Amino acid sequence: MDEVQVRLRLLVAYHGAAFHGLAPQPGQRTVVGEIASALATVLRLDSPPEMVMSGRTDAGVHAWGQVLHVDVPVGSDPTRVERSLRKMLAPEIVVRSVEAVDTAFDARFSATFRRYRYTILNDPLPDPWLADNAWHVREPLDLDLMRLGIDPFVGEHDFSSFCGAVQDPARQTNNRRVLSGSVTRQGHDPRLVVFEIVGTAFCRQMVRSITGFLVDIGRGKRTPGEVRSVLGARDRAAAGTVAPPHGLCLWEVGYPEASPRLDRAANV
Amino acid sequence: MDEVQVRLRLLVAYHGAAFHGLAPQPGQRTVVGEIASALATVLRLDSPPEMVMSGRTDAGVHAWGQVLHVDVPVGSDPTRVERSLRKMLAPEIVVRSVEAVDTAFDARFSATFRRYRYTILNDPLPDPWLADNAWHVREPLDLDLMRLGIDPFVGEHDFSSFCGAVQDPARQTNNRRVLSGSVTRQGHDPRLVVFEIVGTAFCRQMVRSITGFLVDIGRGKRTPGEVRSVLGARDRAAAGTVAPPHGLCLWEVGYPEASPRLDRAANV
Repeated sequence: MDEVQVRLRLLVAYHGAAFHGLAPQPGQRTVVGEIASALATVLRLDSPPEMVMSGRTDAGVHAWGQVLHVDVPVGSDPTRVERSLRKMLAPEIVVRSVEAVDTAFDARFSATFRRYRYTILNDPLPDPWLADNAWHVREPLDLDLMRLGIDPFVGEHDFSSFCGAVQDPARQTNNRRVLSGSVTRQGHDPRLVVFEIVGTAFCRQMVRSITGFLVDIGRGKRTPGEVRSVLGARDRAAAGTVAPPHGLCLWEVGYPEASPRLDRAANV
Repeated sequence: MDEVQVRLRLLVAYHGAAFHGLAPQPGQRTVVGEIASALATVLRLDSPPEMVMSGRTDAGVHAWGQVLHVDVPVGSDPTRVERSLRKMLAPEIVVRSVEAVDTAFDARFSATFRRYRYTILNDPLPDPWLADNAWHVREPLDLDLMRLGIDPFVGEHDFSSFCGAVQDPARQTNNRRVLSGSVTRQGHDPRLVVFEIVGTAFCRQMVRSITGFLVDIGRGKRTPGEVRSVLGARDRAAAGTVAPPHGLCLWEVGYPEASPRLDRAANV
């Protein structure tokens, strides 16, 4: 197509339990597949457009702040697209906003950080409301020990011990930069423990593997002192427990303030 | 059966979306049906025992503190029953506790009050996590007006305007006693508005009808001054909006402190 196009940036929340993962797959209900199909309907496109997401989330993982971009025919009204997608995709997918952006914006490559939240139900009893939204850990967690365990992760490291299988070893490295991490018990519901981690990028299963290790520290199966040696081993087998996907949520993707964003009205 | 029996009291939470209502129905997955089947398995009974619940909840309504009683063969260990049921029924049904009680205890007739909570997501945007757990109301709610609307409900009234169809008119009255009500915006998430109501008992759809009326007050469709006349009309058609079931939760059932409860060990 040599038709003139405009780039839209979508901010999207979704509940992972309702989908077979994020990326479109033939015959499966996926988050991006649903959004692309709805866009094709709204804009009367011949086929679902290709969409670029900030990063993948595994099947079952949730997002509050997933970001995608897509190129659509010029003249497409972002406000109308936002309203239509919101109506068509709720409640499992909530389109929080749709904006026209400069074509220099790339949902994946312009991103400067990703913030994830992992929710743990730390109580002897399960909770029927949290079955799909939090990892149920019965043993009382020592949050101070978990905090000591976070420190060695911060900074740039080879995270091979905490990364799932690399799909194309020739092109990928497991070097990543963790900017910060925290563990807090929620004041409004002390059964809930939230682990938040911010990094420039994460490899596959990295947040869930780090969470699993920290929970093992919190329940006394590992020690904070082991983190450095496990990182140093660069061996998947060294890390152990991978936290289940349903406690994890992609909370926010950061972009430079300077990221040129066109005024919505300019494209109406 | 003239076998000697012991009475167990069960405290149970469940997520309404997973079941076709509460009471056992042939061929349907119901809350009490599941509990009774599990009990039959644990205690090796010939058939699921009859269970008495504090009160019915409509299909889709949740409970955090539903109470049931059941008579089981003497010698049944409440601690073992508790553990087994918890394991078999989680995560949709969570058996919070099982205790042996005096046969004078009746889950329905010993109850002195019921406390319900209705959760409203009051925000322009839906939330994928709350789709089954809160009523999404887009228009901003005026909580002060809603509070004024609660006052006339408190006390003993004929609630016919706020009650679903009476199944056996000869035996039932729609006179009920509301003890208190409140509306609060949640500090940890200001999108959430919780309406809590306590009464000695409620007729069918009563909490959902009152909630619907209060929300109509909050969004300016009705006024607090109309409550008395609608109550006085004793006419179902006068009330209007019935809030959907998925925002409602039976939070607590109250019993007299003096309710004779045997020590667990006594029946082991």
